[in-house]
Amino acid sequence: MATALAKPTSPPQMGDALAALENLLGDRLSTAMAVREQHGTDISYHPAAPPDAVAFAESAEEVAEIVKICSRFAIPIIPYGTGTSLEGHIAAPLGGLCIDVSNMNKIVDVHTEDLDAVVQPGVTRKTLNTHLRDTGLFFPIDPGADASLGGMASTRASGTNAVRYGTMRENVLALQVVTADGRIMRTGGRSRKSSAGYDLTRLFVGSEGTLGIITEVTLRLYGIPEKIAAAMCSFENLEGAVNTVIQTIQMGIPIARIELMDDLQMHMLNKYAKLGYPEKNLLLMEFHGTEAGVKEQAEMVQDIASENGGGNFEWTTDAEERNKLWQARHDVAWANKEDRPGWGFWATDVCVPISRLADVILETKADVVKEDLRAPVLGHVGDGNFHMTIMVKPDDPEYLKKVEAANDRLIERALAAGGTCTGEHGIGIGKVKYLQAEHGDSVQLMQDIKRALDPQNIMNPTKIFGPSTGPRLHS
Amino acid sequence: MATALAKPTSPPQMGDALAALENLLGDRLSTAMAVREQHGTDISYHPAAPPDAVAFAESAEEVAEIVKICSRFAIPIIPYGTGTSLEGHIAAPLGGLCIDVSNMNKIVDVHTEDLDAVVQPGVTRKTLNTHLRDTGLFFPIDPGADASLGGMASTRASGTNAVRYGTMRENVLALQVVTADGRIMRTGGRSRKSSAGYDLTRLFVGSEGTLGIITEVTLRLYGIPEKIAAAMCSFENLEGAVNTVIQTIQMGIPIARIELMDDLQMHMLNKYAKLGYPEKNLLLMEFHGTEAGVKEQAEMVQDIASENGGGNFEWTTDAEERNKLWQARHDVAWANKEDRPGWGFWATDVCVPISRLADVILETKADVVKEDLRAPVLGHVGDGNFHMTIMVKPDDPEYLKKVEAANDRLIERALAAGGTCTGEHGIGIGKVKYLQAEHGDSVQLMQDIKRALDPQNIMNPTKIFGPSTGPRLHS
Repeated sequence: MATALAKPTSPPQMGDALAALENLLGDRLSTAMAVREQHGTDISYHPAAPPDAVAFAESAEEVAEIVKICSRFAIPIIPYGTGTSLEGHIAAPLGGLCIDVSNMNKIVDVHTEDLDAVVQPGVTRKTLNTHLRDTGLFFPIDPGADASLGGMASTRASGTNAVRYGTMRENVLALQVVTADGRIMRTGGRSRKSSAGYDLTRLFVGSEGTLGIITEVTLRLYGIPEKIAAAMCSFENLEGAVNTVIQTIQMGIPIARIELMDDLQMHMLNKYAKLGYPEKNLLLMEFHGTEAGVKEQAEMVQDIASENGGGNFEWTTDAEERNKLWQARHDVAWANKEDRPGWGFWATDVCVPISRLADVILETKADVVKEDLRAPVLGHVGDGNFHMTIMVKPDDPEYLKKVEAANDRLIERALAAGGTCTGEHGIGIGKVKYLQAEHGDSVQLMQDIKRALDPQNIMNPTKIFGPSTGPRLHS
Repeated sequence: MATALAKPTSPPQMGDALAALENLLGDRLSTAMAVREQHGTDISYHPAAPPDAVAFAESAEEVAEIVKICSRFAIPIIPYGTGTSLEGHIAAPLGGLCIDVSNMNKIVDVHTEDLDAVVQPGVTRKTLNTHLRDTGLFFPIDPGADASLGGMASTRASGTNAVRYGTMRENVLALQVVTADGRIMRTGGRSRKSSAGYDLTRLFVGSEGTLGIITEVTLRLYGIPEKIAAAMCSFENLEGAVNTVIQTIQMGIPIARIELMDDLQMHMLNKYAKLGYPEKNLLLMEFHGTEAGVKEQAEMVQDIASENGGGNFEWTTDAEERNKLWQARHDVAWANKEDRPGWGFWATDVCVPISRLADVILETKADVVKEDLRAPVLGHVGDGNFHMTIMVKPDDPEYLKKVEAANDRLIERALAAGGTCTGEHGIGIGKVKYLQAEHGDSVQLMQDIKRALDPQNIMNPTKIFGPSTGPRLHS
């Protein structure tokens, strides 16, 4: 959707930097407009903003050399993995250099006994899981897109499996990073836990490229469960679905996935995929364990669901049946895209304490109905995280404003409930204004850290904090 | 054991600060020597170092006022919970003010549906669990001592349940902190996950009071399992025990506790508690789940253990039997204490990738035998974390040096294996010299952050980084 190119602003010393970079990289430095445009364009509603050039890096040492040149000439640096950001993380509104790490795609090491893997940042999650197939292990974090693991670490991504396996916060053991002055550093070792000093790993996870560039990621792996069961269940009332989730978690049932689609989402899905599911609130679930374990889990959740008004509970361990159930979940993006051909979408991403989830969804649904917006709901409800996908009429700035205002009110509601403006997409340029509302004075602590580690503000400037953070590069 | 009081060094403006503090706190400020000595003395081999005064704070607002006074007069601040540190965290080698938060012991809120609790920092873990009893929920982190939850957050504590429930890193949702300039800030909300800005929560967790004072902790809770089973099993060879752990985790068996005691530890335990356990390597385990689930888990682990040479596998869901089994684990501290009356102990705390655990333990055991040291092993082996308790002859500096040298070699071994010098005790003053060895240049990033958030270096100075960090207060 991001088509309108923002007017590029080149840093004053870009020419000198390009000469030095070309010397270092040869034809792995590109200034071709098509390459620049592609690298400044994510999959969101945010306007594209191409960098002045794109460097295709091949090693941490090379990234360090590139960063040293950019540091010398005060050139903004924007890291790039697969370009699947939803909040403008890869836009270059101040120009500068995009460092594309997609060629840094080696799986460096898999330690099967320790259940960890060391990968370069350009490796995608699907590539890693394909590589792991014969080991009996897998990496669970699944944000939908086949994102790069460096990018997923940078935005603290999660997705459908987080209710059981956690997010990138819990599953990155350590990082190798290149700092803003071009030093290569490690944030930790491979032990499962450590109390040795500040948690630099967690500081870099979710820092969206504003503190350094991730050049290696050490990840936790898990044994592929002996059995996987999928289940679905429909609810007339949203509260019933959410209460089912609350009670399931409270009872300690180790559910692996629990996803919500609301009535409108189910309607759009039925229409797109020619299915006949009830157009009610649907919970789609997955259980991991032994044969007896998944059966017991599914039956316990079935009992909970039926006490909460759930009907049509179906569960299966058959792989084909299971894939069919989950196909519905995967088709959502296409169903939404085809619902209004030519329209775009605004991906909201609040996350709230689960006791407040039903209220926040219901109030928001009432709000968008009142505003005559089309906005299906899809939720990682085990985490209290849901996405309302607000459809956006093309080439209609007034309509976009109406959508933005609805998102503003949704975020106000989430913050009032003790939640967050973004559960998994990150701040980027899209949620800068909400950061202050959410964190208040503690944004100053974040900015103190940013200034300490990147005094020139060259690492992905404008992201997280907006244009006003730290010493400006140029006006 | 810490008896020799280090000569106190008072900050130059201590007198002015005390006048202002007395005005604020009245008789909740103490300069009595007995109170100061108690507050500068932990349970380790580190020499005690009393502060110049102790403030008994009652609210975050009061902590903020105290910190503002200390900031104005450049007075070191040492936070104090229960004094159960093992690495000299509460020593005051530069003098200054101890802020005792043990009276900040309110359980502010328990959100049963959201499975979280908000507590003041002086609440201990046992007090919290007693309070939770009727809710069906519990807080799992168990470092042995009945430590304060503020202190546990500060050292990134863990203990026996970490293999299933994680450490304080995973179980602190958010903090309220008072910064070095006396501002009260929140590091996050109550949602399960967030991608909104830097992870300040994880930065403060494990920062050992060097970045600010924790004045409120929001913790994750869990449903008390329907059934709990305990099991034990003996192994002739340490490798067999460790391989049992590796395979258990690789198979995804959600074991809740898996603790190792070596042959010497079992011998000392038998002697102390007049028990007849085999004096071999013992695994002590706990399973949480449904009736059928814990049975299935125990039987699977029994199969794994027997393939790895484990014998005498016993398991039970009977609460009395279970308590009897765990009594052995709890008696270890007393058994070690009584083994050599009058001796002290040096608590080591390395954590390594689990594939290297057997090697590191065996090499270290050979080393201490060669040095004629007495050093039983107790391990949270599911995490790769073990404590070798090296007995220390009293009033014998040469002997202490020999123990220190053995610990040095143990840590070298752990670091070479990709591990950490401290799995759960923290750096304090005891492991400053190993921080650089473990983290190399990235210690500079930690120091940059420390300087950015505490430019005067008044927050628990000398801890983590030693005396040379940041602008010195006085020489």
